[in-house]
Amino acid sequence: MTKTFSFQCADCGHSEPFTALVDACPACGGTWLDPVYDLQSTATIWKKGLSRRGCSMWRYWELLPVRDQRHVVTLGEGWTPLIHLQNLGGMLGHKHIYLKDERQGPTASFKDRQASLAVSVLKEANINEMVVASTGNVAISYSAYCARSGIKLWAFLDSNVPHEKMREVTLYGTEVIKVSSTYDNTKQVAVRFARHRNLFLDKGIRSIAAREAMKTLAFEIAEQVGVSRGKRWAAPDWYVQAVSGGMGPVGVWRGFKDLFDMGFIDKIPKLAIIQTAGCAPMVNSFEKGLEVAEVVQRPASVINVLSTGNPGPAYPYLRNLVLQNGG
Amino acid sequence: MTKTFSFQCADCGHSEPFTALVDACPACGGTWLDPVYDLQSTATIWKKGLSRRGCSMWRYWELLPVRDQRHVVTLGEGWTPLIHLQNLGGMLGHKHIYLKDERQGPTASFKDRQASLAVSVLKEANINEMVVASTGNVAISYSAYCARSGIKLWAFLDSNVPHEKMREVTLYGTEVIKVSSTYDNTKQVAVRFARHRNLFLDKGIRSIAAREAMKTLAFEIAEQVGVSRGKRWAAPDWYVQAVSGGMGPVGVWRGFKDLFDMGFIDKIPKLAIIQTAGCAPMVNSFEKGLEVAEVVQRPASVINVLSTGNPGPAYPYLRNLVLQNGG
Repeated sequence: MTKTFSFQCADCGHSEPFTALVDACPACGGTWLDPVYDLQSTATIWKKGLSRRGCSMWRYWELLPVRDQRHVVTLGEGWTPLIHLQNLGGMLGHKHIYLKDERQGPTASFKDRQASLAVSVLKEANINEMVVASTGNVAISYSAYCARSGIKLWAFLDSNVPHEKMREVTLYGTEVIKVSSTYDNTKQVAVRFARHRNLFLDKGIRSIAAREAMKTLAFEIAEQVGVSRGKRWAAPDWYVQAVSGGMGPVGVWRGFKDLFDMGFIDKIPKLAIIQTAGCAPMVNSFEKGLEVAEVVQRPASVINVLSTGNPGPAYPYLRNLVLQNGG
Repeated sequence: MTKTFSFQCADCGHSEPFTALVDACPACGGTWLDPVYDLQSTATIWKKGLSRRGCSMWRYWELLPVRDQRHVVTLGEGWTPLIHLQNLGGMLGHKHIYLKDERQGPTASFKDRQASLAVSVLKEANINEMVVASTGNVAISYSAYCARSGIKLWAFLDSNVPHEKMREVTLYGTEVIKVSSTYDNTKQVAVRFARHRNLFLDKGIRSIAAREAMKTLAFEIAEQVGVSRGKRWAAPDWYVQAVSGGMGPVGVWRGFKDLFDMGFIDKIPKLAIIQTAGCAPMVNSFEKGLEVAEVVQRPASVINVLSTGNPGPAYPYLRNLVLQNGG
C-alpha cells in the first residue's frame, strides 16, 4: 500500500508534497517542518479496521511519514504494555498510575520507534550511509535497524556512555567514534564529520521521522487507556516523561492532537516534564519564565541518557504546549 | 472470570480436579502431571473472540492453569514479534526463517512467561515465599514478578552467573545466594534449603505452570505464521530451539498438540534441539541412541544459561517426541 501527504513549515506556513529528504523549508529556510496527513480519511479507516491490525507501531501507518509499506524496516517495535502500577499508586494515594514499559522493545529503549521509522524513511530515499550522535540508546537502536536494512552507520558517542552500551553498538558492525567530551560537543563533532564526508546526518528533534515516531506512544496509550475504561479510545489526564532533548513529549503531544482532531478523544493530556537536578535546563528555564533555555554547560547526572545541556528548539516548543494546555 | 480443569498423571493416568499446589500423583506418586482442559469449548470461544483480545500471553488464558483471572500477575509478557530473517534466509538459501524475539519481554528472556504464570498460580494458592535455582534469567524474571506481587524470593545462583545479572536480581529485593559450583549442584543446594525451611520450591520442568507457560509460544507462532499465510492459524514445518533443561520445546510441543487437537492446525512441527559442544547431554545421548541422558559433569560453554549438565526427565520426553514426530 502507498499513500501521499504533505509537509508544512512551522515558521512561514508553506506547504508542499512530502519527499523523504526534505531538509528545510524551500520558501523561508525554516528547519521545523510538520507532515500533514489526511486525518479525515484516516479516521474512517481506523474506525473500521484498526483493532484487527498487528501489534506494532506500524498499525498506525497512515499517520507515519513513509509512502510505501514495502519500505518499512521493522523488528516488532511498539505496542509495549501499559502496566498498572498498583503498589506505587497505593503509596502515592492515586489508583490510576500507569507505566508505558518501553524497555520491552527490540533494543530495550523507546528509540526503537524512532530508529524503525527513520531507517524506513532512509530506505525509501535510497540512502545507504548515515551518521548519528548519541548518549548510547539511539546508537544501539539505529545500529540494529541499520544492520537489518544494510545501511552503514557512523555513531558518535560521548565519554559518559557505559562500556556495555559501547560494546552493544559494535556488535552490530557500526563504526564507533568515542568523543572525550559532553553530549552537546559530541553532536557538533558528528555534524562536522557528516558535512565533511557529505553523509546523511540524523537531525534528532528536527527530523520529521524522529518526532513522528513518538506519536505512536500517544496512539497506543489512548487505545490502552480506552480498554481500561471500556471504550475504544481515551486520553489520560496527564502525560509525564523524563526528558533529555525533549523529543518524546513533543511527538507524544502531536499524537494526542491528531486523535483530538480526528474526534477520537475529548481532551489533550497535560504534560509534565521531568529532569534531573544535575541537568535541568528546561525545568530551570521554565521556572525563571525564560522563552529560550539557559544552557547547562556541564551536565552532572548519573543518568547519562538525560544529559542534553542545550535543548535547543525543544524548550520553546514544550514551554508553549505547557502554557497552552496546562502542565 | 473463573474456570475449572483437571490434571492427569503421565505415569498411571490418574486424573482429578486441579488444585494449585498439587505436587505428585495421589495414586502412584508420579511427578509428571499434565493439566487437562476443555479443548472443545475453548476452540469455540477462540474461533469467535480471540482476535479481539489483548496482546499478551494471557489472551490464551483458557488453556493456562489459573482458575480465577483476578489472580493473574502480569507485566505485559508474551506476544513477542516473529521476525522474518531475510538476510539469514538469503545466506542459507531458505526464504522462510523466522525468529521469535523473546528478548522483547519484561526482563528480556522467555522466562517471563514462566514467571508470570508460576507467580499467578502461587498467588492463587496464597503462597508468599518461594525458592528458585537459576543460571540467571529465571532469577531475574521471578524477582520482577515476585516484587510485583509481594512474594519473598530466595534465588540460588551458580558461580558462572555474570555480575550484571547478579546485580539485576538484587535490585528487585530478592535474597541472593551464590553457590560456588555448577548449576546442577546449585539446584541440589536449593532443594535442601527449601526442605529445611519448608518453603515452596519451583520445580522447573516438573512444574505444571512452568511447562504450560511455554505453550503460549506455540499459540503465538501459529497465529503469527497464520497471518503471513493469509490464514487464522498455521504451523511451521520445524521448531528449532537451543536448550538447557529443555522446558521450552517440551511446552511448545504441547501447545502445538493442543492446537492440532482443536483442529486449528493440520500438523505438528518437527523439533530441532540445539546444544553447545561444551554442554550437550541431550544431543550426545540422542546420537548414541540412549534412553536416559548421560550427564555432563563439567559443563564448559560460554553461554552460561545453557549449562544444564543433567537434563533429567526432559531428555526421554523430548527423545520420544523427536522419534514420534520427526526432528
